[in-house]
Amino acid sequence: MIRILAALVLLSPFAIAQNADSSLRKILDDQTAAWNRGDLIAFMHGYWHSPEVTFFSGDTIVKGWEPTLQRYRNKYQAPGQQMGKLSFTDENIQMLGSDAALVTARWHLEMPDGKKLEGLTTLLCKRLKEGWRIMHDHSS
Amino acid sequence: MIRILAALVLLSPFAIAQNADSSLRKILDDQTAAWNRGDLIAFMHGYWHSPEVTFFSGDTIVKGWEPTLQRYRNKYQAPGQQMGKLSFTDENIQMLGSDAALVTARWHLEMPDGKKLEGLTTLLCKRLKEGWRIMHDHSS
Repeated sequence: MIRILAALVLLSPFAIAQNADSSLRKILDDQTAAWNRGDLIAFMHGYWHSPEVTFFSGDTIVKGWEPTLQRYRNKYQAPGQQMGKLSFTDENIQMLGSDAALVTARWHLEMPDGKKLEGLTTLLCKRLKEGWRIMHDHSS
Repeated sequence: MIRILAALVLLSPFAIAQNADSSLRKILDDQTAAWNRGDLIAFMHGYWHSPEVTFFSGDTIVKGWEPTLQRYRNKYQAPGQQMGKLSFTDENIQMLGSDAALVTARWHLEMPDGKKLEGLTTLLCKRLKEGWRIMHDHSS
């Protein structure tokens, strides 16, 4: 009986939402850890590996996983560029049905010269067979 | 028989998606028309009328319908400010289940002095009892 109840609890919408919540937070946590060891490929693991993924920044649209990686490389790993130390605050997760979620946060970059940059990010995430991935990123 | 088929077509997921698509496009069209006659209240009709609606721009979070209206007033209707002529291009609508959608577009403002501004907008829309409304706007 306890096993049946436990199974029901694990399958309840609340439990599913809790699992989704921690999977979605893990995207940000994994991206933070990857960025802070300078590993852009691991950072990009959070994004849908597709030519359809979109990245909006300022007035520029980047479409596709490879071009998004290249944008990060050009902006943060080109000669004279620094990646800095990444962190997120004000994280907010809103489930949109069982397979989509809106994640918003404030990003912070502390650069080696002490300069502190910050901005906002809006991530539209979808649950794919490989797990939760960012389908659309708008950062400013 | 034709009536039954017509009813089935009207109720099909395709028809529902088509209806949602035109309702979502209408938000942008109505906002464009409202902006271009200087009517910010009508422009704000596209947003969820709630203290929970969020507007991200640059590194600034505005929360709530009234503060979002006030931000538009301060930025575009304060003395010396101009609203310009608004248009959208590159509109893209992605349904996320039946009651949520991601709308992205490029915004353009043609100012009275001929200056042309442009940027990107990401809108997370939800179907409420009052119709489709923007719950979250990230513009840059």
